[in-house]
Amino acid sequence: MRDVSIIGVGQTEVGEHWDISLRHLGLGAVRAAMADAGVTHVDALYVGNMLSGEIAGQEHLGALIADFSGLRGIEAMKVEAACASGAAAFRVAYLSVSSGVADIVIALGIEKMTDEWGSDVTAALALAADGEYEAFLGVSFVGINALLMRRYMHEYNVRHIDFAPFSITAHENAMNNPYARFHMPVTRDRFERARMIVDPVNLLDSSPVADGAAAVVLASTDVAKTLSAAPVRIVASAVGTDALAVHDRRDPLVLDGAVISTCRAYEQAGIGPEDIDLFELHDAFGIIAALSLEAAGFAEKGRGVRLAMDGKIGITGEIPISTMGGLKARGHPIGATGIYQIVEVVQQLRGLAGKNQIPNARLGMAQNIGGSGATVITHILEAPE
Amino acid sequence: MRDVSIIGVGQTEVGEHWDISLRHLGLGAVRAAMADAGVTHVDALYVGNMLSGEIAGQEHLGALIADFSGLRGIEAMKVEAACASGAAAFRVAYLSVSSGVADIVIALGIEKMTDEWGSDVTAALALAADGEYEAFLGVSFVGINALLMRRYMHEYNVRHIDFAPFSITAHENAMNNPYARFHMPVTRDRFERARMIVDPVNLLDSSPVADGAAAVVLASTDVAKTLSAAPVRIVASAVGTDALAVHDRRDPLVLDGAVISTCRAYEQAGIGPEDIDLFELHDAFGIIAALSLEAAGFAEKGRGVRLAMDGKIGITGEIPISTMGGLKARGHPIGATGIYQIVEVVQQLRGLAGKNQIPNARLGMAQNIGGSGATVITHILEAPE
Repeated sequence: MRDVSIIGVGQTEVGEHWDISLRHLGLGAVRAAMADAGVTHVDALYVGNMLSGEIAGQEHLGALIADFSGLRGIEAMKVEAACASGAAAFRVAYLSVSSGVADIVIALGIEKMTDEWGSDVTAALALAADGEYEAFLGVSFVGINALLMRRYMHEYNVRHIDFAPFSITAHENAMNNPYARFHMPVTRDRFERARMIVDPVNLLDSSPVADGAAAVVLASTDVAKTLSAAPVRIVASAVGTDALAVHDRRDPLVLDGAVISTCRAYEQAGIGPEDIDLFELHDAFGIIAALSLEAAGFAEKGRGVRLAMDGKIGITGEIPISTMGGLKARGHPIGATGIYQIVEVVQQLRGLAGKNQIPNARLGMAQNIGGSGATVITHILEAPE
Repeated sequence: MRDVSIIGVGQTEVGEHWDISLRHLGLGAVRAAMADAGVTHVDALYVGNMLSGEIAGQEHLGALIADFSGLRGIEAMKVEAACASGAAAFRVAYLSVSSGVADIVIALGIEKMTDEWGSDVTAALALAADGEYEAFLGVSFVGINALLMRRYMHEYNVRHIDFAPFSITAHENAMNNPYARFHMPVTRDRFERARMIVDPVNLLDSSPVADGAAAVVLASTDVAKTLSAAPVRIVASAVGTDALAVHDRRDPLVLDGAVISTCRAYEQAGIGPEDIDLFELHDAFGIIAALSLEAAGFAEKGRGVRLAMDGKIGITGEIPISTMGGLKARGHPIGATGIYQIVEVVQQLRGLAGKNQIPNARLGMAQNIGGSGATVITHILEAPE
């Protein structure tokens, strides 16, 4: 098992890119990451994407984007694990370099959701859930998360307003991220008055539909040292899964997939949650942020929301999350999100996070979740020496 | 780079499975492969599939099928490279074991195409082509292959009937494969009179739409030797790519992706085409079979069809292809096909191919092609000692 490091990152603005095709969007991120890494060739491209077939009328993104990026001929394929597709592509890139098959590869996350060629985006997002036992019965993907949130509020005697700090913190952090979808502060009052989507999930509880692409160049640590003055080591890479349908789970309010994934990652890195300096978690909804904090060992069961209420998730808090805006405010272009998370952890570990810099960040964790918890992929990265 | 072997294979009948859901179909193949391998647990599941989102209304197949197969919690994801999705999943499974991250994993190929929930299957198949420059302009996937065939006939002065031996051989071989979609001999006369689909591709030039799933259990060769009396070694695993759009290629009648992929595979195995005892090629259409034989070094440019006309592709021929029926007659359930090919090579190398057994088969090659040649994935397997 070869040691693997990150030598370059690139991202495009998260937004509504009606004027840019899928391939151009991918090219932008690939170019930026390769320029940052200072390389002109890579051995392989792994593309994380969920919905290009349904929404953009295009499968086969691996070869398409490899060719369009001037890399015709190289190994290329797409990897999908619903909303965790980005981290899944990064995982395969890691396996490729770790195996010794490749020395330098790119993981690209990409999604275009705002100009629909085929499916309606709400219908397409439901493909992440269990089709036969959830989606076909009419529950939307937001609906599933609303059911979870309602249950959490009931079990733990938590009010809707108690989730506000997740949204407020994410939007506050996004103010300093030029790539973020929103640059708009959220207040408790605004949060409370936001339009209801699926009770109790309202607009400011939800991450936005968006277009975006981000890319990371990985290399074996030996090769990385010859190419980069400050490679970021991957000290853990782990995947855990659970049932797709929430009603099939052991306990709807415990993300077992996240527990498995995080434990494996901690074990690989030889650390515990107390060693993590920042946590880019999957805050697609406030409820998922809360459940993630619990599954990853930062809060007891039912106490994830309390952590946010107590002000512990901000840049200067005990466990900073969503440091560049998270899914909530940087935006959630499904298959790209997992790569944006990695890019942002790298920014922090390189000390290049600007006003949002976590002082002395040494270990950063990124966790990308597919569906409402069925696939959970965790990576822990270490700052350059 | 750890040495990797195959210790179990399983397949379901290729056909119209309107009575079986996607997850049940996957379960059937996973169970069969695990039983054949004699294992009750694996570390990861990699699923090759192209169209489950579009046709069956379900993405996120990795976690779904892992859970339904009793493997909840394990690493799981889907891999897509259009019609080469099966081999792409096998490739990722190989990387996973080769890296040392996992000891025993499953690669599953699965596709349900005959009961459409969402897209029409012809529209869905066009997602393998270049959306913006081919499909959106109205050319179907069969249409692209018809253009290639017409060009080949023109350039090399080949008649339509000259392609008949590909179809006749495939159907002949499928007669002895209980898992094949068709058990129906094809004659020259029948071939000539078959219904035209897109001139000059007629019904008996084309591989059929179908449902199917097949699975392979891979293990590190060290682990494989403790579990299996006759592990089949993977001596090469290689991916090559080309432009999606045929008009962007260097030469429309040379599959550069296949040239790259095959050369890499030969180099890894330290062999040449003369050492290959059977070749499970991607005969989605007769024209693709011909171009594959040329790209893989079995025939000069423009002479692939001649090889078939001269009777060299049958079970007792110089280079047997489609030995269990190929895409043409075993059937082509898109994302499953690459795994069916591997399963069939393993059958041959184990000496378990029944009436279709290639005598003393020692090295078998499987080549899965995505789109009309944009992704080409080649594996070479070696018979047990």
